[in-house]
Amino acid sequence: MNEADLRKTLLSYFETCFDRYESLFGCLRSDAAYFQKSISLRHPLIFYFGHTATFFVNKLLLAKLIPERINPRFEALFAVGVDEMSWDDLDEANYDWPTVAEVKAYRQQVRSAVTRVITEAAWCGPMSWDNPWWAILMGIEHELIHLETSSVLIRQHRLDFVQPQSSWLPVNAKPVDCGAVPKNALVNVPAGAVTIGKGDPHADACASAGEARRYGWDNEYGVHYAEVPKFSASRMLVSNAEFLAFVDAGGYAKDRFWNEEGLGWRRFAKAMHPTFWVKQPDGWALRLMCEEVPMPWDWPVEVNCHEAAAFCVWKAEVTGMSVRLPTEDEWYRLYDLSGITPETPAQRRLSGGCSAVPVNQYAQGDFYDVVGNVWQWTCTPIYPLAGFEAHPIYDDFSIPTFDTRHNLIKGGSWISCGNEALRASRYAFRRHFFQHAGFRYVVGEAPLVAQVSHYEDDALLAQYAEFHFGQSYFDVPNFPRAVAEISLKAMQGKPMRRALDIGCAVGRTSFELAKGLPGALGFESVIGVDFSARFINLADELVRDGIVRYALTDEGSLQSFREITLAKLGFTDCSAKVAFLQGDACNLKENHREYDLVVAANLIDRLYDPAKFLDEISQRIVPGGVLVLTSPYTWLEEHTPKAQWLGGFRRDGERYTTLDALHAHLSRDFEPIGAPQDVPFVIRETARKFQHSVAQLTCWQRRA
Amino acid sequence: MNEADLRKTLLSYFETCFDRYESLFGCLRSDAAYFQKSISLRHPLIFYFGHTATFFVNKLLLAKLIPERINPRFEALFAVGVDEMSWDDLDEANYDWPTVAEVKAYRQQVRSAVTRVITEAAWCGPMSWDNPWWAILMGIEHELIHLETSSVLIRQHRLDFVQPQSSWLPVNAKPVDCGAVPKNALVNVPAGAVTIGKGDPHADACASAGEARRYGWDNEYGVHYAEVPKFSASRMLVSNAEFLAFVDAGGYAKDRFWNEEGLGWRRFAKAMHPTFWVKQPDGWALRLMCEEVPMPWDWPVEVNCHEAAAFCVWKAEVTGMSVRLPTEDEWYRLYDLSGITPETPAQRRLSGGCSAVPVNQYAQGDFYDVVGNVWQWTCTPIYPLAGFEAHPIYDDFSIPTFDTRHNLIKGGSWISCGNEALRASRYAFRRHFFQHAGFRYVVGEAPLVAQVSHYEDDALLAQYAEFHFGQSYFDVPNFPRAVAEISLKAMQGKPMRRALDIGCAVGRTSFELAKGLPGALGFESVIGVDFSARFINLADELVRDGIVRYALTDEGSLQSFREITLAKLGFTDCSAKVAFLQGDACNLKENHREYDLVVAANLIDRLYDPAKFLDEISQRIVPGGVLVLTSPYTWLEEHTPKAQWLGGFRRDGERYTTLDALHAHLSRDFEPIGAPQDVPFVIRETARKFQHSVAQLTCWQRRA
Repeated sequence: MNEADLRKTLLSYFETCFDRYESLFGCLRSDAAYFQKSISLRHPLIFYFGHTATFFVNKLLLAKLIPERINPRFEALFAVGVDEMSWDDLDEANYDWPTVAEVKAYRQQVRSAVTRVITEAAWCGPMSWDNPWWAILMGIEHELIHLETSSVLIRQHRLDFVQPQSSWLPVNAKPVDCGAVPKNALVNVPAGAVTIGKGDPHADACASAGEARRYGWDNEYGVHYAEVPKFSASRMLVSNAEFLAFVDAGGYAKDRFWNEEGLGWRRFAKAMHPTFWVKQPDGWALRLMCEEVPMPWDWPVEVNCHEAAAFCVWKAEVTGMSVRLPTEDEWYRLYDLSGITPETPAQRRLSGGCSAVPVNQYAQGDFYDVVGNVWQWTCTPIYPLAGFEAHPIYDDFSIPTFDTRHNLIKGGSWISCGNEALRASRYAFRRHFFQHAGFRYVVGEAPLVAQVSHYEDDALLAQYAEFHFGQSYFDVPNFPRAVAEISLKAMQGKPMRRALDIGCAVGRTSFELAKGLPGALGFESVIGVDFSARFINLADELVRDGIVRYALTDEGSLQSFREITLAKLGFTDCSAKVAFLQGDACNLKENHREYDLVVAANLIDRLYDPAKFLDEISQRIVPGGVLVLTSPYTWLEEHTPKAQWLGGFRRDGERYTTLDALHAHLSRDFEPIGAPQDVPFVIRETARKFQHSVAQLTCWQRRA
Repeated sequence: MNEADLRKTLLSYFETCFDRYESLFGCLRSDAAYFQKSISLRHPLIFYFGHTATFFVNKLLLAKLIPERINPRFEALFAVGVDEMSWDDLDEANYDWPTVAEVKAYRQQVRSAVTRVITEAAWCGPMSWDNPWWAILMGIEHELIHLETSSVLIRQHRLDFVQPQSSWLPVNAKPVDCGAVPKNALVNVPAGAVTIGKGDPHADACASAGEARRYGWDNEYGVHYAEVPKFSASRMLVSNAEFLAFVDAGGYAKDRFWNEEGLGWRRFAKAMHPTFWVKQPDGWALRLMCEEVPMPWDWPVEVNCHEAAAFCVWKAEVTGMSVRLPTEDEWYRLYDLSGITPETPAQRRLSGGCSAVPVNQYAQGDFYDVVGNVWQWTCTPIYPLAGFEAHPIYDDFSIPTFDTRHNLIKGGSWISCGNEALRASRYAFRRHFFQHAGFRYVVGEAPLVAQVSHYEDDALLAQYAEFHFGQSYFDVPNFPRAVAEISLKAMQGKPMRRALDIGCAVGRTSFELAKGLPGALGFESVIGVDFSARFINLADELVRDGIVRYALTDEGSLQSFREITLAKLGFTDCSAKVAFLQGDACNLKENHREYDLVVAANLIDRLYDPAKFLDEISQRIVPGGVLVLTSPYTWLEEHTPKAQWLGGFRRDGERYTTLDALHAHLSRDFEPIGAPQDVPFVIRETARKFQHSVAQLTCWQRRA
């Protein structure tokens, strides 16, 4: 596409989205409707009205496409949504909202500014994640998300606050008796592989094909591959009729169908039926966006994840089958098997009216509504794909959702446009939230354990992950690797069967000992032991998942995010030879014997009884074996009672150093190998503050 | 002297001293006398019997002249004396002392070992502080000190525990009536200069002349020069007769003659007369080392410093003159005026009997007993001379005495041998202690304020002294100087009248701003302000005394000592332009106005209200003036409430950095000069642990 076409197409896309968003707000009957909250968990709609415009300003500023703010006061007011983290949020903030007219005027100013950028700003292709113009696409897609979520807020608003609009009319529901609704059925899905992810976000989007060329949120990049076992899935989304059986069976009252979190929500909300169902004297109605209609029994039920999961538990009980929600991977199996393309007919992109449609309207392969109609809940908490990077100008879009509390919803709904309607897209919501979302169920094995997706933001743990596996600072080489190298060199000519890395922290030295020096073999078996279960867990995670993510403090509470993989570190092969255990260096279990090498790096000045450790360690090492100790000798009473310090005090009138003490404790069973050497190390605390220390390394050979 | 002569002379000297020490202990009547303490403040004599031998072993080990210990158990037991820091020490430690015979045998083993070293160890001249053989001289001189102090313990022992020996007989006192003792008189001493100190300890001792060639304790090295005003001094030491007038006048009962410390001691000890005076029915006797004799009224009285000072206060009252103890410098004036040489006849070096002699026996110039007879108390607490360094193998000989609580005693006594009898020597005792010591008095102006001599061992203060004035680490240039250089460069072409260094800590930047860039002028006036009075005091001390000493942590509680001088730093001239004040950056006094430059280095992330500081600082700076800020932005709630952090958090959905905040606060009144730059700094915590940070420096010009 040439530049002129790009500008033209983009402008048209922008205007369409921007104007359509305002059009949606025409469903608010009065100005008052903007200021009254529809639900307590969210701002009133006036916020969302201004928010998407403010978002354009913020991102275009960061991308340096505009030189200054348009309305600093509005851009403060409309910047941040309410934290939807809790259902017991009683936010009563007294916001000083501007008038609707003022916000409309503001939106026009923003529209003009964005138009000016698209029309006049310097363009340098290709379009990509790294191109400043990505911010324009981001603004548009962000507004499309809010188009959908605002439509839900409108749907949740009191009826007298909303008004139907001709451009926003629902589909006319043909009345169907509850009993006449087509029965659902299970369809077998064979085992197969799925690949998710758009790969490297910095690759040239225009050079890619298909969806890779389109805008993507950061959570879509990277890669995930899974071999999905066979399962069966409900042919259709669960309809209101199918769900009624659960309601009538007392599903909302029977605690056994609800897990702990779901039960907590259900009791708090006093939920007794799906939120958009309206109890009537003679049955049920359904609240659509701007009106109530007699219950369309053949339309998909709309519930939160807790309700969907409870239905599955009930269904499992009544059928005796392992009924549950699908995983994200299983949904992709349906997608891939159903031959869906952007042209596949579906109830989406506002192409067929502003509501759901019957669950048996849009066939896609052997299923209905694999995409479109309403979103479908999965049981998979969203996690970052391998290679995930946060986009620098919106780094808190995805990362806060990687907290195991946001479940993926797939497929899109009737109002999902743009990115939302793509295979690659990955949206997630808190399990207690409502959207235009329902579910299908599957019968299959219990899904694999959810990917551990959190960013370790235990500050100390993150510091150590960076220290062991991250970058170097001040040209100081990686310390745990340096210690391993020195140790491996000391082992030349000796048998290398078993090594113990005591005080291993997050395990770098253990991995290096198993890997060995370049061109040489490593140890046959390495045990890493640390007193801290947290440290051991991270090392285990790296082996088990092949990936660890952590958040480093940059400045104050601002963080940046890192990802380390076993593969990039070159430890994939050797990790099978390494085991990590929690343990106490001053009280090692009996089975720690017969080591050819024991490494205790930066350990002794952190023990509560270092003398005991030194006096007993020889029993763990074979004759001729090696002990490597490193320490900066930073004795601190918070770790070691002063009476237990090995050295660093005057004894009998003379300076008695820790090195003196090492000789005193070890010389009976060990002879020193070589002279003590200095090994520096740097631990990053913030982007500007580091601990820079110099450990002394001593090497000892176990006497025969 | 050739090598053979050296070995022979040294061996002879060693044997003489070593055997004489044992001979002294022959004054103990029984083995029991070794184990019973003579005074509560000291070990029993068995300790001192073994201690001097153990000292040889310890120092020869450190000097690597012997390869191993002779008796590790004894060397632990005999290593450290009781801390004589308090008169209320009720040490009841239950030591498992060896027998006298065992210690005698041990001493013989040590004698043989030292003999072997002197005879056979490799010799590489010249003899000097840095030569390992210095340890041999040190052992000998150490034993000579204990010869004297043990003789005092013997003198303090119960009479039935001691026995006179023919080789240790006192001088026969000719009986003199109290009234017949020659009256003391004041002798005028003109104003004059004194120079003390043996200079650089690493200079070649053999190349020097006179005393400089001899062994010296570390406190003798360095240099001190003083211009001493005229005064008059008592011709003779105060005799027992002269002191009796004080006793009879009720001097011990009248509190007004005693300062607070002296009064505390006097009450605790219930002292009513000098400690060696023995009350008899018909008068007084005097306890000598091993016997009591009728009071020799014409011998010098022996008292502690408190008693001597109280006498002076009484004497001042009765005479109306400013009577006081001499200063060390005043004693040196007497010494230099009296033409004393090593050959001058005096009651010292055991040359004239094992006791004092009459105060009118040894004339030296216009005085008697400038040297010899008994030590004479001064009112000067011992302090390190400029250029002082602790000797690495005995670094706690002098330094613990630099605590303002150890007063110098000069001149030596009848038993003072070796180093003790030299002009250069500087011995000091706690003011409540007894030795063979008395005093003369002077009449003169109040002495100059005692030299501040302590080692700042407030760890943070010492860290900052090193950070500002000490050595560089990891090749990172001195930070406060780098900040001053950048600031001075920003001032080029601008008037440089007044500068404010706010958050100056210990003042390096202030000094550099006053000094200016090489070849250029500095500021006419620099004010350094810090919230911490401790930091300001150290900067003041450096200006006032020209010297600051501090103790750095090496490892655990082991320290090493540093000294910084204004002269070596090159700040002598510019310091007159600098003033240091305690103050609060968030609440500066009104008079802080009209600055051409304000530097706030590593300040803002340590303020409780940094925004206030930034918003008001422009009022302090002239139009066109410069503001320089540096910070690593390490926001911590312990310094700054989170609500007051300038940046380092998300604001309105976006990352908001401290740099963003600086622009927001300053842009109204300042324009940025240049781009932000990174300036690294390193703060040493121990010999192996450092904080290594990178501050961001921004430069701002006050708008006109």
